Amino acid sequence: MPERIEGRNAVREALKAGRALEKLYVQKGVSDAVIREITAGAAEQGIRPFLTEKEKLDALSQTGRHQGVIAEIAAYEYAEVSDILKAAAEKGEDPFILLLDGIEDPHNLGAILRSAHLAGAHGVIIPKNRAAGLNATVAKVSAGAVNYIPVARVTNLSRTMEELKQKGLWFVCADMDGEVMYRQNLTGPIGLVIGSEGDGVSALVRKHCDFITRIPMSGQIDSLNASVAAGILAFEVVRQRKYRK
Amino acid sequence: MPERIEGRNAVREALKAGRALEKLYVQKGVSDAVIREITAGAAEQGIRPFLTEKEKLDALSQTGRHQGVIAEIAAYEYAEVSDILKAAAEKGEDPFILLLDGIEDPHNLGAILRSAHLAGAHGVIIPKNRAAGLNATVAKVSAGAVNYIPVARVTNLSRTMEELKQKGLWFVCADMDGEVMYRQNLTGPIGLVIGSEGDGVSALVRKHCDFITRIPMSGQIDSLNASVAAGILAFEVVRQRKYRK
Repeated sequence: MPERIEGRNAVREALKAGRALEKLYVQKGVSDAVIREITAGAAEQGIRPFLTEKEKLDALSQTGRHQGVIAEIAAYEYAEVSDILKAAAEKGEDPFILLLDGIEDPHNLGAILRSAHLAGAHGVIIPKNRAAGLNATVAKVSAGAVNYIPVARVTNLSRTMEELKQKGLWFVCADMDGEVMYRQNLTGPIGLVIGSEGDGVSALVRKHCDFITRIPMSGQIDSLNASVAAGILAFEVVRQRKYRK
Repeated sequence: MPERIEGRNAVREALKAGRALEKLYVQKGVSDAVIREITAGAAEQGIRPFLTEKEKLDALSQTGRHQGVIAEIAAYEYAEVSDILKAAAEKGEDPFILLLDGIEDPHNLGAILRSAHLAGAHGVIIPKNRAAGLNATVAKVSAGAVNYIPVARVTNLSRTMEELKQKGLWFVCADMDGEVMYRQNLTGPIGLVIGSEGDGVSALVRKHCDFITRIPMSGQIDSLNASVAAGILAFEVVRQRKYRK
């Protein structure tokens, strides 16, 4: 059963934290700045409020203090980075993690989770700020992958990279000026860093990468779609791990 | 009716590719380097922008994401299959063609055109029926690739495959029960057949394929997004053509 969150502040905070709504009940006739902020946040996830009589909200309420708004939240929970390492250890595999440096489009995030899971990655790490979080759109586009692959959200991607380096991981950053990926060694405990749709990998995160890798592109346009690029890179890791002679 | 192109990158790429504008709408009060580049390009064609209220642009928009600029362009022209072979011959390369057996989502078609162009494919062949065609959404998502890669639309995909076999092409079909792609020879004059989002490659088209290839997937969900799968397969062809020792 989905978790219920009640009350204006609690629901607003849940949305700000990127929690995925399943349903939103708003009391009929109640509309002010906070409620509008909540319904706008829900709309971004493709969720429209049920306008509900006060009596029905009172009956739904578990706390008795719903203040005109009750949200049902999806059970997608963020993992810890340690959960990702544990998942790798349990399989007896070198960790294989995707780090997304500012993917903002929920469709791209959903597609990347799908690809990461199917490539056998043990988890995905995303930053808390300026990035899409796990919401209803991401869940839908991920085609269920969100239920299987752990996603950790961290405050500072560079710091997390340094901590993971202490545990033996090394980081490869996807960028146009790297060496062609087929010529690099992408085996071992690896974190694959994918940049944002517009700007690529940020300068700070790039500084913490051990090396830069590149998908060799021809053609007269700039770059691949971020989720396609992530899929191609993730499966190059698969090839090198499992299919290289 | 003229084709509409929406969004800053799509309009800029269309102009760079020399597409003939019919009209250019720019949102009032919006002016920056990209918009100035677009209006300069339009001016070279003798086209002056209509400065337009945001509401009017919203109403004109077919994608909902015009980013302040909409261009009307003479409709995208489909190429002939022979144009694709000619493009390969002019580069002195073995033909490399993607055949899309019923891709219905314009976002997937746009992303596949983008990947195909960047993988150096010489063209894309789509069927006339039950498939997305070249429209404004496809153009935008293709990030300009639609201006560079020839797209041929045919009545009967199987018949086209048989005709191309006479010219030395062979066809590899992406499906779950094939041999792992890394272990197959994907060099030479090749047509890569990608199935539809829901159903994969149709039985009839599959019968005309020379063999079946597979992206090796782990995990507990069904399959990759169609455009991600197409990108991964197309770049495996790139690897084998250009980077295999």
